[in-house]
Amino acid sequence: MRKEILYIIKVGGNIIDDEVKLSAFLKQFAGLRSSDGSVTKKILVHGGGKLATKLAAQLNIPQQMIDGRRITDEETLKIVTMVYAGYINKNIVAGLQANHCNAIGLSGADGNAIQAHKREHPTIDYGYAGDIDSVNSILLKNLLDQDIAIVMAPITHDKKGQLLNTNADTIAQEIAKAMSELYEVNLIYSFEKTGVLLDANDESTVIATIKPDYYARLKAEKKIFAGMIPKIDNAFTALNSGVKRVTIGNAEELQKLISHTAGTSITNE
Amino acid sequence: MRKEILYIIKVGGNIIDDEVKLSAFLKQFAGLRSSDGSVTKKILVHGGGKLATKLAAQLNIPQQMIDGRRITDEETLKIVTMVYAGYINKNIVAGLQANHCNAIGLSGADGNAIQAHKREHPTIDYGYAGDIDSVNSILLKNLLDQDIAIVMAPITHDKKGQLLNTNADTIAQEIAKAMSELYEVNLIYSFEKTGVLLDANDESTVIATIKPDYYARLKAEKKIFAGMIPKIDNAFTALNSGVKRVTIGNAEELQKLISHTAGTSITNE
Repeated sequence: MRKEILYIIKVGGNIIDDEVKLSAFLKQFAGLRSSDGSVTKKILVHGGGKLATKLAAQLNIPQQMIDGRRITDEETLKIVTMVYAGYINKNIVAGLQANHCNAIGLSGADGNAIQAHKREHPTIDYGYAGDIDSVNSILLKNLLDQDIAIVMAPITHDKKGQLLNTNADTIAQEIAKAMSELYEVNLIYSFEKTGVLLDANDESTVIATIKPDYYARLKAEKKIFAGMIPKIDNAFTALNSGVKRVTIGNAEELQKLISHTAGTSITNE
Repeated sequence: MRKEILYIIKVGGNIIDDEVKLSAFLKQFAGLRSSDGSVTKKILVHGGGKLATKLAAQLNIPQQMIDGRRITDEETLKIVTMVYAGYINKNIVAGLQANHCNAIGLSGADGNAIQAHKREHPTIDYGYAGDIDSVNSILLKNLLDQDIAIVMAPITHDKKGQLLNTNADTIAQEIAKAMSELYEVNLIYSFEKTGVLLDANDESTVIATIKPDYYARLKAEKKIFAGMIPKIDNAFTALNSGVKRVTIGNAEELQKLISHTAGTSITNE
């Protein structure tokens, strides 16, 4: 029997920071329908946006970034827990409910949805940053079976009482891998760009499909924007772990990303 | 057939603000067992504590209180959403997980758990304060059936996208009323006092049982601390709506409150 389709959609910070764009995105997410018109199974993974940085500045808590990753000291963990799992997560859920999409917001601690451990690194102390150990696919499936969409905040826990700040792209990927045993998983990274671009300054140069050999060539010729490489590497890791398809594209074109008429599709096939 | 017992436990702000007391409380909550040793069905409703007030002060957002109720303007709503549904809720859930109690934290928006409307009052504008319309007992039962404890933050929504600050005592009561069709509900208000006291300054004067006629007498003789009256009034309202028993007592004696060897029991019988 063919597995049911599950959409796992990561939405990036620039959309979350923009009230109008976020509202339009949530409307599209709420309205996603399968080709037969039934409610689709869907999980939304959101990043943090600039609100945490802004709040830290207001509270005079200095923020340290290394390679684009936030160093999460105790005070910063408090802030990201409040902003990501509280303010952003609950406003997204309320916004979906307003669009007639029953949704539930979770952190990784809730129902032990995502268990992680504090990152160990030989030279850099990332503080309370989580690296994921396991995803509770049974819990998530049970909620999806009730036609509830899941909204996941980028906060996990270690099951010893410690919350951990965790990269949202990685969360989306790990959920996708874990759920691919139960569903035909489509993983979508949606953000403010139209997809993977050949020219970072020209939105019309979006690459429709990337397969492994083409990707190797693009990287060798340095034609891919450096910030995009971890996303594509993650995409191939996901595909190699059972995920059906990974799409990267503009959050404002979500329905088109779903129907593969926009964005960049990354595939092994 | 006799209904299964469900414990709905409200824990007050003074416990939440005290890390040691909260930790001891969560350990007791996690360990609650029925007389036959099986995992009990349980819902924890938490208040806000002083952290929201402290954060508002740090951010220079003036707070206005009328009759002990916070006036929730837009900035204050943001703060209580962050603190109650984010920081406090997720730390409680992580603390329960560390004590081998699988728990899930919810706001009223999550799964449409608690729908409310913005309070209408002829003279006072309470701002984004919620008065409860309905509790989604089916969602809560489904989670409880998976042996997941529910941790409810005092934030609801209006299903039109608006989050609302909502009194935690009222939330506990409304959940208790809604769930009493499905369970034999024991509603417990736990805080820093040993129960309802005859002498507010003497913890040894706890009243073991309050029935309606005795309550009328206590009120007439002004023997009950004014702050306690709304709690007891709410208790009788709950009993008249199908709740089996209401207990008020010290959060540090939770197991004794459950076994009716401490605190004040309020009953119609």
